[in-house]
Amino acid sequence: MNTQTKTEKTIKIAYIGGGSRGWAWKLMDDLSKADDLYGEVSLYDIDFAAALANETIGALSGGNFTYHAYESPKEALTDADFVIISITPGTFDEMESDVHTPEKYGIYQSVGDTVGPGGILRALRTIPMYETIAGYIRDYCPQAWVINYTNPMSVCVKTLYEVFPQIKAFGCCHEVFGTQELFADALCELRGIENAQRRDILVNVTGINHFTWITQASYFDIDLIDLYKEYIAKHPNGVGKHEPEDYFGCTNRVKFDLFTRFGAVAASGDRHLAEFCPGNWYLKDPQTVLRWGFSLTPVSWRKKDLAARLQKSADLQSGAAAFEHGDTGEEGVNQIRALLGLDAFVTNVNVPNVGQIPNLPLGAVVETNALFSKDGVRPLMAGDVPGGVLSLMLTTAINQLTTVQAGLTRDLDLAFRAFCTDRLCDRLSPAEAQALFDEMLANTKDYLPGYGL
Amino acid sequence: MNTQTKTEKTIKIAYIGGGSRGWAWKLMDDLSKADDLYGEVSLYDIDFAAALANETIGALSGGNFTYHAYESPKEALTDADFVIISITPGTFDEMESDVHTPEKYGIYQSVGDTVGPGGILRALRTIPMYETIAGYIRDYCPQAWVINYTNPMSVCVKTLYEVFPQIKAFGCCHEVFGTQELFADALCELRGIENAQRRDILVNVTGINHFTWITQASYFDIDLIDLYKEYIAKHPNGVGKHEPEDYFGCTNRVKFDLFTRFGAVAASGDRHLAEFCPGNWYLKDPQTVLRWGFSLTPVSWRKKDLAARLQKSADLQSGAAAFEHGDTGEEGVNQIRALLGLDAFVTNVNVPNVGQIPNLPLGAVVETNALFSKDGVRPLMAGDVPGGVLSLMLTTAINQLTTVQAGLTRDLDLAFRAFCTDRLCDRLSPAEAQALFDEMLANTKDYLPGYGL
Amino acid sequence: MNTQTKTEKTIKIAYIGGGSRGWAWKLMDDLSKADDLYGEVSLYDIDFAAALANETIGALSGGNFTYHAYESPKEALTDADFVIISITPGTFDEMESDVHTPEKYGIYQSVGDTVGPGGILRALRTIPMYETIAGYIRDYCPQAWVINYTNPMSVCVKTLYEVFPQIKAFGCCHEVFGTQELFADALCELRGIENAQRRDILVNVTGINHFTWITQASYFDIDLIDLYKEYIAKHPNGVGKHEPEDYFGCTNRVKFDLFTRFGAVAASGDRHLAEFCPGNWYLKDPQTVLRWGFSLTPVSWRKKDLAARLQKSADLQSGAAAFEHGDTGEEGVNQIRALLGLDAFVTNVNVPNVGQIPNLPLGAVVETNALFSKDGVRPLMAGDVPGGVLSLMLTTAINQLTTVQAGLTRDLDLAFRAFCTDRLCDRLSPAEAQALFDEMLANTKDYLPGYGL
Amino acid sequence: MNTQTKTEKTIKIAYIGGGSRGWAWKLMDDLSKADDLYGEVSLYDIDFAAALANETIGALSGGNFTYHAYESPKEALTDADFVIISITPGTFDEMESDVHTPEKYGIYQSVGDTVGPGGILRALRTIPMYETIAGYIRDYCPQAWVINYTNPMSVCVKTLYEVFPQIKAFGCCHEVFGTQELFADALCELRGIENAQRRDILVNVTGINHFTWITQASYFDIDLIDLYKEYIAKHPNGVGKHEPEDYFGCTNRVKFDLFTRFGAVAASGDRHLAEFCPGNWYLKDPQTVLRWGFSLTPVSWRKKDLAARLQKSADLQSGAAAFEHGDTGEEGVNQIRALLGLDAFVTNVNVPNVGQIPNLPLGAVVETNALFSKDGVRPLMAGDVPGGVLSLMLTTAINQLTTVQAGLTRDLDLAFRAFCTDRLCDRLSPAEAQALFDEMLANTKDYLPGYGL
Repeated sequence: MNTQTKTEKTIKIAYIGGGSRGWAWKLMDDLSKADDLYGEVSLYDIDFAAALANETIGALSGGNFTYHAYESPKEALTDADFVIISITPGTFDEMESDVHTPEKYGIYQSVGDTVGPGGILRALRTIPMYETIAGYIRDYCPQAWVINYTNPMSVCVKTLYEVFPQIKAFGCCHEVFGTQELFADALCELRGIENAQRRDILVNVTGINHFTWITQASYFDIDLIDLYKEYIAKHPNGVGKHEPEDYFGCTNRVKFDLFTRFGAVAASGDRHLAEFCPGNWYLKDPQTVLRWGFSLTPVSWRKKDLAARLQKSADLQSGAAAFEHGDTGEEGVNQIRALLGLDAFVTNVNVPNVGQIPNLPLGAVVETNALFSKDGVRPLMAGDVPGGVLSLMLTTAINQLTTVQAGLTRDLDLAFRAFCTDRLCDRLSPAEAQALFDEMLANTKDYLPGYGL
Repeated sequence: MNTQTKTEKTIKIAYIGGGSRGWAWKLMDDLSKADDLYGEVSLYDIDFAAALANETIGALSGGNFTYHAYESPKEALTDADFVIISITPGTFDEMESDVHTPEKYGIYQSVGDTVGPGGILRALRTIPMYETIAGYIRDYCPQAWVINYTNPMSVCVKTLYEVFPQIKAFGCCHEVFGTQELFADALCELRGIENAQRRDILVNVTGINHFTWITQASYFDIDLIDLYKEYIAKHPNGVGKHEPEDYFGCTNRVKFDLFTRFGAVAASGDRHLAEFCPGNWYLKDPQTVLRWGFSLTPVSWRKKDLAARLQKSADLQSGAAAFEHGDTGEEGVNQIRALLGLDAFVTNVNVPNVGQIPNLPLGAVVETNALFSKDGVRPLMAGDVPGGVLSLMLTTAINQLTTVQAGLTRDLDLAFRAFCTDRLCDRLSPAEAQALFDEMLANTKDYLPGYGL
Repeated sequence: MNTQTKTEKTIKIAYIGGGSRGWAWKLMDDLSKADDLYGEVSLYDIDFAAALANETIGALSGGNFTYHAYESPKEALTDADFVIISITPGTFDEMESDVHTPEKYGIYQSVGDTVGPGGILRALRTIPMYETIAGYIRDYCPQAWVINYTNPMSVCVKTLYEVFPQIKAFGCCHEVFGTQELFADALCELRGIENAQRRDILVNVTGINHFTWITQASYFDIDLIDLYKEYIAKHPNGVGKHEPEDYFGCTNRVKFDLFTRFGAVAASGDRHLAEFCPGNWYLKDPQTVLRWGFSLTPVSWRKKDLAARLQKSADLQSGAAAFEHGDTGEEGVNQIRALLGLDAFVTNVNVPNVGQIPNLPLGAVVETNALFSKDGVRPLMAGDVPGGVLSLMLTTAINQLTTVQAGLTRDLDLAFRAFCTDRLCDRLSPAEAQALFDEMLANTKDYLPGYGL
Repeated sequence: MNTQTKTEKTIKIAYIGGGSRGWAWKLMDDLSKADDLYGEVSLYDIDFAAALANETIGALSGGNFTYHAYESPKEALTDADFVIISITPGTFDEMESDVHTPEKYGIYQSVGDTVGPGGILRALRTIPMYETIAGYIRDYCPQAWVINYTNPMSVCVKTLYEVFPQIKAFGCCHEVFGTQELFADALCELRGIENAQRRDILVNVTGINHFTWITQASYFDIDLIDLYKEYIAKHPNGVGKHEPEDYFGCTNRVKFDLFTRFGAVAASGDRHLAEFCPGNWYLKDPQTVLRWGFSLTPVSWRKKDLAARLQKSADLQSGAAAFEHGDTGEEGVNQIRALLGLDAFVTNVNVPNVGQIPNLPLGAVVETNALFSKDGVRPLMAGDVPGGVLSLMLTTAINQLTTVQAGLTRDLDLAFRAFCTDRLCDRLSPAEAQALFDEMLANTKDYLPGYGL
């Protein structure tokens, strides 16, 4: 795009979960480099001290933005042009229950934040929070664009639209980027093309968050689906090495196996993909997981990591550490620029289905490409989810809709219908499913308001 | 309906699978009582001797019809006004593989003809047969109404429409009738109403064959859903007694359990319902099955039963036995009368979804009520499949569409996508699923033409 | 239906527009003959004196119901099991503007209450009234079944659903009955079948109110579409005689002409049908109208008729006239009986499209057959509107949706978009259309609250 | 897009209508500048001499392509990577009938090639030609991308898909470009921004060809809809001067009037827009047309223009004139480059609706933006056609579908249903409509094969 008119924009960005010690710093970093944007970032967090800490850190990040922590959501959100939502629903204690309680019943989850028993319990405590947030946006900044980063992504975005149908919200996830990088690796290894840029790797994306599929891909005139086949043939056991204590990496063996079986490229990390499949496929037990080249992420690790990030926050505030700039790999600030009219580009996004995926239900939150431009996020027609994958995907897509309904009406019977038909609950009898569900509810009841627990 | 004009009709009914020793005799019985119908029944069967036997037996059945066996489908079908299809795809040897081979892998099936590994293998050998039959109808009697009784019902009906889209075909199944009788029992026990007639028990039916659900039911001003709740409360362990060697009965415990969990009335026998649920629910192992008050039907029993029916056929032909008349409980002849304009009534039927169930895919064969009248089968808007049940139902509905596509294109890779995501295959790893699939294909390859086996 | 259990029902029917001197008396008549129904009819009317008069007349009608006039809608509607709405939106002075003001611009309307400039203006004053009524129902008797008789039918029913989406409302119109009688005439004349009953003349109905089409029709085994062709061929100039001052009759020439052109049976009276077609077809000028065998109904006639009905009301109250019983030809009481579970039958009805007509927009109020049974009105899949007719029908269907939106938001610019694209406004330039619209608004502004006039 | 890999492509482009003296030369011009494309252009035309002439002229155009005329469509199309279709259906004698015969009945058409009586007659003779062409593509180059330029656009593209559903065809039209230029003028006049490039004027396009609407538009951060309002307010009588003998220009008064009435930007030239509206709006008579600032294009002018182009062809062949290069303003070659993977961009295109416009029928050919990239044309979700415009648009959209059906089945009764309900036929009685239709058929019957004329 030939930018004839150089325009600068002054905006207000409200950050819900503004005490974050991760995403928030990446945003600060990216904003510090956006030399055509000016304004304020208002930080709102139920942990006000954390927001205050980020007020301090934000000031250190450089750039054209000022950072203010607010105790009142009204102040934080009024007149916001953009709202970013990135929260932890509950604490890691609740996540510990989500992820590890099912292990007693033989259910192993690699992430536990999207689908499976953990994903559903997390959803049940997130939905009331998002109900509140949607109300804030409706009341204080109904015209703002809202970017969600919280998981379970589909459930969060759907809740926002259910509560405030006129909301201009979308959800962002960088899982697809990883697959684009895998294509770049294949281009390098098999075609000698180095440094292929992600933006030049064009993919057609269809599916739901963390179970997204690529049905067409190209790098200029090179068909990347053909290349991918060649790549898999050369790497029958996946690519790269994976160590058991590597909790986020994978060898892409699950992704390769799914391609072999279903003929399309699954576009998330293996840890996510495995959770959408029948429980005996990749997550039967920890040994099976390792054999497929990835690991279960223990919540104990997340707790340790949080402690490290708290220390880093303290160091940043005290000056013991300097604010680090880098390549965040995130697109949020570019999306903001596009929505202001300063750019226009196509990327993947999570929004309710208005027809972009004809064989998923209208209204379900789906992930496809969209054109970002001034005040517009227009999905591209992504085409049908590939036939063989569809029956698996619909189980989750329908159960997510059921869960949102259950959460909004605080109906645990309805929620259990989603729970007991989840693919990872396959191994349970009805009675076991009920017992596990009840135990997980009891464990996390402090964050389940209004459910009558 | 006030029948002012008494009309008599002369028609030709073609019976594909006309050597049948079950359905065919019921049809003869019902036709013998239809005093306003005259004409010919043409019997076509790949076992011509069996068709000839029924030519003899038909002559003994009384009534206004003549019975002729034909060796050529062209002769049998030309000028037919109605076509009835009721075949056995393969022999009981193939069915033995369908039902019992999966047991080696821990998969138990109560019927094995609709869903699960057995249902899918049966589908793969039925689809080429129905492809041929649809071609016959297109070529010899394109205006005929076609009634299908063969299982897997949805797959058979879908294949007919795929091959000859203008076909006027529908599928009939009496499973819903059984639930209406259960309502009649409840009316008797709880309200003292004796002999409630099935036609007065109005039900709204939505779903797919053998996994049909009743969302509204009444007997005059009595709400039968409320009554059903009361009935279940009084019978926490189901109704009636079930003995292990009772291979077709059940205590309705599965049906009651599903109502408790999903809030709607499942309207098939427990043996069918269990096969649509996760494998660990009702079919975990033979002990679990018995505990839920039903039995696995062994194919050895079917073989014995067939021998008895063959003997009966011989006895009927030789005059050692007399043709028995009774109440068949079937609606086929009434449907024929309605399509001729002699009656009009509402009953349940399997046809492609044109919108009667908004939350199932268009084109999938679904079961709902329809108005039968002169040259018309008009589905009633049945409403959405209840939320909680939908994710289970879609797994099968989508896999059936995939299987039909796989069968018509003889694509075993595609068929395996349906196979490995079937709910009863839950307990298998991908490799085990492949091994079982291959073994079942090998066992039945004589009836799998064109698949490259 | 074999009514084993003889049940009697005590119900409350609320009548909005209960001062009516037409429909209300028919209802009284029909209720007086329903020996299995008991209860109260509560009469509510903005003309309380008229409601009081009907309280008196109702008492004279005999039967098991008591009649009470209420000044408060709350009292009238609370605990109602059924609500009947039959009102005159405004007075005949407003209708005089609706029908006759457009004549200055060369637009002639035979009825002026459904479509055309008159229909749209009538809609604009009816929508706020129905907004209020829908609110009453939501607040006082949300579970009641609501039967609408007011025109414009589609607009009234749509408004009820827009304001209170959970409403159980439907609209009834007897125009289709007239076409069934025409079939009966043809059966008599061409086949010698006398006294064919309407209920035995089965029709498939698809379209929108007053522009409904019959795509399949039979009397037992007789195809009535074929018979209709024969009938038309024999009556090239229509059937029956029509005199200029016969304001409601017609010779069915329009209906026959539409059949010849479009190949399907238009199922309303010619006066209604003509208004959905391009202005130059049947309503070009009064001479053209007469040539097609029908008349424009002047509002002066309606005023005279009203005076006669007022006199009749006075006579009934004073005892100068006795309450007359007859065959009303209406189905309302039968529908009530069916909804109570005392009967079950199929008839035509106006409800929002949930898929029963695939090629009309979802949500548009459409007219098709439906099965009436205990607490249920289930539309039958009516099939597509015939191709050639569809483009005409969509003009009105879309404009009705636009008009309801315009009425609810009191947006006259939006309303004008429907007005200027109406088929009867064909002959106007944009400026003339605007002038006519403004004049009609000014004429009727006393009944257009909130529009800023 | 950062083109790292410089790729050159050798392709075969087949040109149906390759004797063209307009589009063909523009293509030659654009191809001569595409320095990354090489190959052959095969010219096929029923006028072989004309194709031969272009073989000569093509050689003069420079660049990397060779030009060959073929007498056999098989040779021309075999192995083609791209097919361009740009034909004249019949001669200008037929078009003379299309455009001017209706004038006898008071119907004036400014173009007469898309809609109105002329558009429908042109469709009826084009459909059989496109039926043939679709067959060629299916048989000789089923994988080729097919670009259509012939009018009536929607009808041509729909016919291709009806005959060969797997075709990869789309239709291109530059009418939207004109509106983008109008925005550029407004940017210059009102904001002082000179030389705004069309690619930087981002528009969201929804509708059908020649009746396309822009619902969102921006130039970087400038909202062009707001700007357009301002522009219209400043130019109440349109922009620019129009002389009666200026047959292609206009003052945009129709466009401005439609904006005022419907609140969205109509995106074609006024000559096209007027033909979709009721006949009395802009085309009542020649005086009205002039008053709205445009002209009726007489076919006599087209004939004269053709003579000039024939002369130019002769001059080019003889060397009396040199091949002229310029800015064609066409996108075809860029689209070809994108489909080869050499570029990726968003532009407007005509393809069957798969959901990109939710309130137009699925399958109707619609015009929206699409992303062009390697082997892909993915429509963007364009959103609903604005409410007020929809009823007008559906009349044409449905009539186009009806016309294609009528053309493929050679069913003139069906075609007449579209004809008599067209908005420009408003002024006719049914009998007049029939007479005009018959006269136009008779006039052009040499090009109406198989219709039984």
